[in-house]
Amino acid sequence: MLELIRPLVVGNESKIVLLSLDGLGGLPRPETGKSELETARIPNLGALAAEAACGLLRHVAPGITPGSGPGHLGLFGYDTLRYQVGRGVLESLGIEFDLRAGDVAARGNFCTVDAHGLITDRRAGRISTEVCVRLVDRLRTIRLPGVEIFVEPVKEHRFVLVLRGSGLSGRLSETDPQLLGKPPLPVRALTAEATDTAGLVNRFIAEAQRLLHDAQPANMILLRGFDQLPELPRFPEVFGLRAAAIAAYPMYRGLAKLVGMDVLKTGGTYADEIATLREHWEAYDFFFVHYKDTDKAGEDGDFDAKVAALERFDAFVPEVRALRPDVLVVSGDHATPAVLAAHGWQPVPVLLWSRYCGADPVTAFTERACAAGTLGTLPAHHLMPLVMANALRLTKFGA
Amino acid sequence: MLELIRPLVVGNESKIVLLSLDGLGGLPRPETGKSELETARIPNLGALAAEAACGLLRHVAPGITPGSGPGHLGLFGYDTLRYQVGRGVLESLGIEFDLRAGDVAARGNFCTVDAHGLITDRRAGRISTEVCVRLVDRLRTIRLPGVEIFVEPVKEHRFVLVLRGSGLSGRLSETDPQLLGKPPLPVRALTAEATDTAGLVNRFIAEAQRLLHDAQPANMILLRGFDQLPELPRFPEVFGLRAAAIAAYPMYRGLAKLVGMDVLKTGGTYADEIATLREHWEAYDFFFVHYKDTDKAGEDGDFDAKVAALERFDAFVPEVRALRPDVLVVSGDHATPAVLAAHGWQPVPVLLWSRYCGADPVTAFTERACAAGTLGTLPAHHLMPLVMANALRLTKFGA
Repeated sequence: MLELIRPLVVGNESKIVLLSLDGLGGLPRPETGKSELETARIPNLGALAAEAACGLLRHVAPGITPGSGPGHLGLFGYDTLRYQVGRGVLESLGIEFDLRAGDVAARGNFCTVDAHGLITDRRAGRISTEVCVRLVDRLRTIRLPGVEIFVEPVKEHRFVLVLRGSGLSGRLSETDPQLLGKPPLPVRALTAEATDTAGLVNRFIAEAQRLLHDAQPANMILLRGFDQLPELPRFPEVFGLRAAAIAAYPMYRGLAKLVGMDVLKTGGTYADEIATLREHWEAYDFFFVHYKDTDKAGEDGDFDAKVAALERFDAFVPEVRALRPDVLVVSGDHATPAVLAAHGWQPVPVLLWSRYCGADPVTAFTERACAAGTLGTLPAHHLMPLVMANALRLTKFGA
Repeated sequence: MLELIRPLVVGNESKIVLLSLDGLGGLPRPETGKSELETARIPNLGALAAEAACGLLRHVAPGITPGSGPGHLGLFGYDTLRYQVGRGVLESLGIEFDLRAGDVAARGNFCTVDAHGLITDRRAGRISTEVCVRLVDRLRTIRLPGVEIFVEPVKEHRFVLVLRGSGLSGRLSETDPQLLGKPPLPVRALTAEATDTAGLVNRFIAEAQRLLHDAQPANMILLRGFDQLPELPRFPEVFGLRAAAIAAYPMYRGLAKLVGMDVLKTGGTYADEIATLREHWEAYDFFFVHYKDTDKAGEDGDFDAKVAALERFDAFVPEVRALRPDVLVVSGDHATPAVLAAHGWQPVPVLLWSRYCGADPVTAFTERACAAGTLGTLPAHHLMPLVMANALRLTKFGA
């Protein structure tokens, strides 16, 4: 799709805004038979849906629940099955570690092993973040020949390990046997080029074991999701757009940076994000603006909080419309139904407004209403070509 | 899709039931403008559809009429264009012949040739099954070096030929010229590895010609659909499900066995099948239960009989629901519209019920109503991932 788009791109002065509500889609609450979107009072979204073309986005494939990485890459126009990003890389993006091309990143867990080295708790009882920080300090003393090592605390028992040097490979097996009563596995090279990297990581693990030996309860580490930064086509080049990302959360700034968007400095609230959008309106063609509250409430299984988060979002819609974007899109990266208290596989409502979006029977921004929209149920990476077309930024294919 | 699913599978205690109505889909009868499903009184299916997510399944591609093989493989999650099963193999499954890896199976017809060896009837006037059995006995006397030969009667003029030995290949051309007034064709090897097998089959044909010389009207054979057992990913391993098949007809037991399901012993009626389901409820995670009557009535072109078959099926729905499955799917392997008196290419209604199936506007289980369902029109092999998601048996893709 990106190869198809790139040669068709033409420039103009149009402005595009993509409002992404994290975990937007939901499911009916059994008591009422209505989803979060169907329960919320969201008159501005309803009015926009009535003027827009609506549909449902599928980010990976039917039945597949997207993580935040594929969820957003899909919105940005990338085929999520073709462009996959390893867990170590995503974890690094989530803490805004300055991961560079060639670095190998892994997600680490502190775990507990018994006197025989057998795992008794894969998360070491979910130690506090403060304990994690202290243990990370111990691991930071490890030195290995020819590589720079970074160990960064994340949250509770989780940390990130990054190796920087030349000739490294992320094609490594994981050390977590995913079972109790087994020892951590050694890292194996999955390709011949990864042999040296595997050796270095195994030396790191041996050193970590020695350094954590007397720590309690977290006396060992598990490493998984080894990967390097993927080589993604750059969003601004593919689409010919000066593209800016506005997100209060590090993970989403990281994902936007990964595809080459400018990440704008903003505050911690959505009001701050919208203010940032207004301030930079002239400088960019495309704005990705991220809203986190919907996902948080969904993950907590708090239906009412998700409804409230949708209503708070709705109040900002007029402010965005007042900027008079040429194309305005509202959608999300995946569903997070409160009844699941987790990401879901359900396709996610999308609305696309432009002067040229066409007639559409949908008058409410809900899962059920959008299922009858003219966009149909479409792969998420088909959205950006539609956005570009509605911005009159694509010339025709074939003479 | 199977490669995508396999690493995401997680285990739990959920129970999945797939009720397959053979030849489910239909077409309106011209006198009333209503299809079989629209004519039948099927209140239990209607109530279930109202609670379920609905849609239409396409088993192969638009306009392509599925045979029973691809029809069911699609339901089981296999891309029917990628995983193809030859007619000889399907015919062997249909008579529950114990076909083994490496065997080459072909479908045979007894035909009539004139004094010059030219075909005058490709089906020898559809001889009775008893005549077929007697002629098969003649063919069973044929011996060939290095291979074991099995000749099995099927129905009327049809039989199955199986060669068992080492180094055989099913890459062979057919002998039926599909025209009258032509002689049967010799078998040609389609790849170099099949040269020896082609020689063996041509010797079998020459012997058969000699042995049938004085038989009337069936004095010759035609062979087609040469194939070996395909190497299919095993359903229980791909999906991590203890899977059982309940089917009164051999063909469907054979198809289930082909993908590695346990085939449960059952009686000849649907009441027997449901009793078998109940008896084995604790021992399996997934049940495929096959209902044949809809297809039989459709093939006979008997609209009213198909309506009656749907109504009989409907009465069993409460018994299945009483078992409290976590995911309940009702669909079929292909359409068999009575007005066609044959399999049809029309997409087939599907309903998927679970606690997490989502809101859906469909309140009737008919072709027309399901077309407006939230599942949309989907390739049949996308159904199993949705089933797995609704059973909460898939973890998310990407972090």
